Amino acid sequence: MTRESELALLKQRLQEIDDLRGAGSVLGWDQATYMPPGGAESRGRQLALLSRLAHERLTDPGIGRLLDSLEPWAEAQGTDSDAAALVRVTKRDYDRATRVPAAFIQRLSEHAAATYHVWERARPDNDFAAVRPLLETTVELSRELAGYHPPSAHPYDALIDLAEDGMTVAAVRALFTELRAGLVPLIEAIRARPEADDSCLNGKFPESVQQVFAEKVIRAFGYDYTRGRQDKTAHPFMTKLGRGDVRITTRYRDDCLSDGLFSTLHEAGHAMYEQGIDDALDGTPLFSGTTAGVHESQSRLWENLVGRSLPFWRHWYAPLKAAFPGVLDHVDVETFYRAINKVIPSLIRTEADEVTYNLHVMLRFDLELAMLEGTLAVADLPDAWRARVQSDLGVMPPDDRDGALQDVHWYGGIVGGAFQSYTLGNIMSAQFFAAARRDLADLDKQVGAGEFGPLRAWLTERIYRHGRKYTAPEIVQRATGEPLSIAPYLAYLNTKYGALYGL
Amino acid sequence: MTRESELALLKQRLQEIDDLRGAGSVLGWDQATYMPPGGAESRGRQLALLSRLAHERLTDPGIGRLLDSLEPWAEAQGTDSDAAALVRVTKRDYDRATRVPAAFIQRLSEHAAATYHVWERARPDNDFAAVRPLLETTVELSRELAGYHPPSAHPYDALIDLAEDGMTVAAVRALFTELRAGLVPLIEAIRARPEADDSCLNGKFPESVQQVFAEKVIRAFGYDYTRGRQDKTAHPFMTKLGRGDVRITTRYRDDCLSDGLFSTLHEAGHAMYEQGIDDALDGTPLFSGTTAGVHESQSRLWENLVGRSLPFWRHWYAPLKAAFPGVLDHVDVETFYRAINKVIPSLIRTEADEVTYNLHVMLRFDLELAMLEGTLAVADLPDAWRARVQSDLGVMPPDDRDGALQDVHWYGGIVGGAFQSYTLGNIMSAQFFAAARRDLADLDKQVGAGEFGPLRAWLTERIYRHGRKYTAPEIVQRATGEPLSIAPYLAYLNTKYGALYGL
Repeated sequence: MTRESELALLKQRLQEIDDLRGAGSVLGWDQATYMPPGGAESRGRQLALLSRLAHERLTDPGIGRLLDSLEPWAEAQGTDSDAAALVRVTKRDYDRATRVPAAFIQRLSEHAAATYHVWERARPDNDFAAVRPLLETTVELSRELAGYHPPSAHPYDALIDLAEDGMTVAAVRALFTELRAGLVPLIEAIRARPEADDSCLNGKFPESVQQVFAEKVIRAFGYDYTRGRQDKTAHPFMTKLGRGDVRITTRYRDDCLSDGLFSTLHEAGHAMYEQGIDDALDGTPLFSGTTAGVHESQSRLWENLVGRSLPFWRHWYAPLKAAFPGVLDHVDVETFYRAINKVIPSLIRTEADEVTYNLHVMLRFDLELAMLEGTLAVADLPDAWRARVQSDLGVMPPDDRDGALQDVHWYGGIVGGAFQSYTLGNIMSAQFFAAARRDLADLDKQVGAGEFGPLRAWLTERIYRHGRKYTAPEIVQRATGEPLSIAPYLAYLNTKYGALYGL
Repeated sequence: MTRESELALLKQRLQEIDDLRGAGSVLGWDQATYMPPGGAESRGRQLALLSRLAHERLTDPGIGRLLDSLEPWAEAQGTDSDAAALVRVTKRDYDRATRVPAAFIQRLSEHAAATYHVWERARPDNDFAAVRPLLETTVELSRELAGYHPPSAHPYDALIDLAEDGMTVAAVRALFTELRAGLVPLIEAIRARPEADDSCLNGKFPESVQQVFAEKVIRAFGYDYTRGRQDKTAHPFMTKLGRGDVRITTRYRDDCLSDGLFSTLHEAGHAMYEQGIDDALDGTPLFSGTTAGVHESQSRLWENLVGRSLPFWRHWYAPLKAAFPGVLDHVDVETFYRAINKVIPSLIRTEADEVTYNLHVMLRFDLELAMLEGTLAVADLPDAWRARVQSDLGVMPPDDRDGALQDVHWYGGIVGGAFQSYTLGNIMSAQFFAAARRDLADLDKQVGAGEFGPLRAWLTERIYRHGRKYTAPEIVQRATGEPLSIAPYLAYLNTKYGALYGL
């Protein structure tokens, strides 16, 4: 066989895997949006089947042989070539998938589903005891999963690596330590100032009007509704159902303006990344965002760096007031801007402001590492959580509902490897935005004129179109000319919140 | 292996086939309701993949061996046993699927997709010439498909048999001839009477209010929204996405009350059949309606025998008027009843009244048989259509849009085997309803009181719960105590329309 026909064969097999996953995404999307309760049992089975078929195809030794045969030829095309990237990334996926026995995957996913089921009730019931034995097993299974991967400096590097290719516990710890050192004084300075007034965000904002307004904004951003759509769900997410079909889901509350709006901007950021990948990569593992952290950087960039900025609202505040006649009449844009950027230590990560948000991530990262390392027993998690929230944020969770039971991550998957990417995304979002501002001299003026084309074109050129062709460090280096750094993020926070709080 | 473990193995394989098909139904439902235009290409590939995987699994020789091994044992359980029915029906599906080469299936489905694509534009453009060469190929492929099945009295019995197990061209012709002899005098008598006034159906009926009203009615029928839902589409249909997830789709027009309402009742009839099948048959080929004709009998029963009856409207007319305040104020229930049952020869099958509807079916049946037999060239189809509509219905299609291009069936599948089931369904609907009325002495009173539980329970017991366990003739015999007969249908039409038109 020629190399070209081997490559064609590989792509044909990968296309089939991608189509099975796309079909699974359709089923998952429907499950979270429209599926009637009676459909749950069949749907679970259908999803498990599609996932198993995709996994069987990816771990087929024929894929391994094709990759081995293609590797030298692909490398000879140049590291930057699509062919080299395809073989490199597919090999990484293949190696990871084949290291883990299918029976273990099955056991893990059954356990995760069962745990999720119990957690769904345990959280509203504030019943940590109900999930405790299950979470203990999850910690064990997470350790077992890490054990299937090659040994590294920290035994749980493998778990981080699954979400954040090439990232290590040591590197995350170093970044977080540095970031914390910058955040804590900022938060203390803000707490010494009078609390911002955000009462204007609570009023009567009919859900359907919010949706129309948010849709206008994300259309202006460049989210393409001919290749996507927006539906309602309990927990907002973005999902790709196939090329040309990247959807977002949202939820709105009539009594609150900010939650629905900013979560829509956030999901649209994820979606524009997926919509912006070069079509030439379709049907291969390269046709998706590169890591969880880079993905989060794109959602946070549009949500925060753009959507919570003063230039943005200088343009959009008039349309917003027009959409809700009477409600914001006596609120000027600066007051509104202060309200949507109010910093206040709170209990819930997903509702936290930009500044304190990262402390929520750090405490989860530290606690899950402690559980994995065996220095924290699952039984002691609720107390450890409370102590840490108290010392880091100065507030005390009244119960486990808003404490150790708060996030789904530990209760529907594994322990380890998920939370760090939220903060990595925040860090990168500021570094990318600073580079864009440097390259596009008029960026703030453009945003202030409701003109997002140049920013989106910059992101498409530097980040979106490459898909998984480059790793996160490579993307950061290529897009910004520098390695990953917390400096732009701290500068952004200090400048913005310094001005807001008169520091 | 014991018989029991062979049966368990067979069921496990069938479950997987069923799950692949259910997944395909989710994708098809989304394609027809919510999918953005950009998703079309990926979706086509995903659907083709799922369909191929299901077909490969069904035609696996292992299934044949299990069936051969299980057959004597299953028959020994008694013809009426679930085991015997499972082996019998699965064997029928297996034999049919294995007779047709996979390469031919592929060719046929690609041709069907391409033809559908051209027809979608050809119909609005009134451009029969655009589809003509494709339709010629479809006729050839339909003949080839028939040729893969065992020889029978008429070469195209195989095509009818695919939709209507055990039914033959000769049997359909005999029924249609008899029915036509009864319909023509009735239609002539009605045409001699003054035309009914249906102007009350055209007015301002907001789509969302129509939907709420129709939902109330089908909830009262017994359509279970915890195991289904209703969405909007261009061409209404019912689909089963899995056990406990049977959905309907509808469309409403603000300027017309009847289309949306009756199509909702129609689809709900299909859906209640699927919702009523015994859960014990889930995951096997027995877990669906038995034939297209019996399915249509259930949709038509709820749409027409119930939904277009005077007792029904004696109960529902007041709620209807209340739903559209002012619009029907000066219209009494009898006038409304006459309007929704207006008989008038027309051009469009799907909009035809109960009496003339079957003439639309018969002309399609005759024309497609003539094309298959080679006595009618595809090029002559438009003229033949016009001549037949003129002679049967006394109206003349102004173009092919409302003539030979009208229905999708020939342009998205094969020629032959689909249309007869619409009229078979009408015939059976009246026979079932007459039997139910005999068994439930108070049926008309119940319907007049908005009480549908006893009727649905009767249908569940006699028809729904059995799924494909019995053939259409067996179901008719078991449910009514008689073989299939047009007498109840003609009696129903003559009584109802005799009263309506004072004949």
